[in-house]
Amino acid sequence: MKPKPYKRKVYYYETDAIGIVHHSNFIRWLEEGRLNFFEQMGIFYEDLEKSGIAIILTNVTCDYKKMFKFNEEFEIHIKIKSISHAKFTLSYKIKNKDQVYATAETTHCGVQNNKLISLKKTLPEIYLAMENLIE
Amino acid sequence: MKPKPYKRKVYYYETDAIGIVHHSNFIRWLEEGRLNFFEQMGIFYEDLEKSGIAIILTNVTCDYKKMFKFNEEFEIHIKIKSISHAKFTLSYKIKNKDQVYATAETTHCGVQNNKLISLKKTLPEIYLAMENLIE
Amino acid sequence: MKPKPYKRKVYYYETDAIGIVHHSNFIRWLEEGRLNFFEQMGIFYEDLEKSGIAIILTNVTCDYKKMFKFNEEFEIHIKIKSISHAKFTLSYKIKNKDQVYATAETTHCGVQNNKLISLKKTLPEIYLAMENLIE
Amino acid sequence: MKPKPYKRKVYYYETDAIGIVHHSNFIRWLEEGRLNFFEQMGIFYEDLEKSGIAIILTNVTCDYKKMFKFNEEFEIHIKIKSISHAKFTLSYKIKNKDQVYATAETTHCGVQNNKLISLKKTLPEIYLAMENLIE
Repeated sequence: MKPKPYKRKVYYYETDAIGIVHHSNFIRWLEEGRLNFFEQMGIFYEDLEKSGIAIILTNVTCDYKKMFKFNEEFEIHIKIKSISHAKFTLSYKIKNKDQVYATAETTHCGVQNNKLISLKKTLPEIYLAMENLIE
Repeated sequence: MKPKPYKRKVYYYETDAIGIVHHSNFIRWLEEGRLNFFEQMGIFYEDLEKSGIAIILTNVTCDYKKMFKFNEEFEIHIKIKSISHAKFTLSYKIKNKDQVYATAETTHCGVQNNKLISLKKTLPEIYLAMENLIE
Repeated sequence: MKPKPYKRKVYYYETDAIGIVHHSNFIRWLEEGRLNFFEQMGIFYEDLEKSGIAIILTNVTCDYKKMFKFNEEFEIHIKIKSISHAKFTLSYKIKNKDQVYATAETTHCGVQNNKLISLKKTLPEIYLAMENLIE
Repeated sequence: MKPKPYKRKVYYYETDAIGIVHHSNFIRWLEEGRLNFFEQMGIFYEDLEKSGIAIILTNVTCDYKKMFKFNEEFEIHIKIKSISHAKFTLSYKIKNKDQVYATAETTHCGVQNNKLISLKKTLPEIYLAMENLIE
């Protein structure tokens, strides 16, 4: 079952001196959306961390198209773009109603005892669940 | 020897939609100033944490008098107000040139293995150094 | 009608190196709760700002009792403590289920054209609505 | 004259629950470095904003290679990669001593009265100064 978009309103402290959301907050929103996306799949970062596994972000890219103001609502739509032994890539649309305000991609790997893990071997169920969601 | 004031300029991302520094950032500045103050005394949080001790903030109070804009310089002047077995209190002035923009106080205790420590017994040198700076 | 508590979960980026929410984020949560509280009363900061009025925070004090971890849910319960011509004070409890994790107070005034306003004269309906909520 | 690298230490509140700097802060550091870079060229955002011009970020991409801990020092090395009528692109290396911890690129355009400006026509001196720094 495909996870639903993540939704919330802009906080006042996320705006900057020209009255719009500071671009760095979009990067934080991606994380909010991503962890919510995983939770809907039954994957909890805090469980992974208890077993000594950290999911690390290795690349982020974000295209800003429109600007958000205080109290506007945003929605984050996420897709799994690809997954391999070593890493996976998610793609995002940040929307306000029907308009796309930003698109983004993040790439991640898994680390345990300071070593890269094979996602397929160490987290086979998660690997499979993610693979099944690739469109 | 009394530590020197901590100084830096306001970052753009610290401003908010009415063009001034968001009040929550003053609380972060207090921490910057405080850790710098301790470093000048030869006390490093990362060393304490290596020995399993965390210095926790238990109270903060801040009076805002004037507002900072992007790129203005602030200075943080810190004094040790009091220290006891269980806790210590610092007082702060955040200034821009000769004007006081905010005053604040923070209170802290030390924690090890989820238990409060006696600052005097567990960190006797730090206790003494702080006591000597009380004016 | 009394506004309802504000509720959400801790974001990952709100944690710090000792694995708990950084204390400065509580100050941001107070703002989230406060603006939500006002919205439930029909008061929107963006409307005030359109008419050139800014509600400024002049003092914050916060007592930290327990620490939040990633993904825990917090609730903010707000009361209006006092209101006068020049300023008003709110008191807060930040709770996790039935436990109080922090208490806080903030004081605010209104500013228009760089001058303090009389809340009673300039914002009579808001003044009255807030006065009616004092317990 | 080529601007010098921007340098400072990691703040405690920039770390997250796995003990390293949260990736979103790198995006803020890029801004710190960028505005410092422009200042060294004699270009001040606050002056541009006074004349109604905002320099907007339209894309950011960042590759994370190594992780920063509290109190480590970082340096940001910036180059102007390209400039055209409509936009310019900067490339960054975030370093700790001789090691590259991250590389990044940001693209920007200028906006006045909600319209894109021609950088060459509206800001000819800045355009020329930037063009001269392309390597």
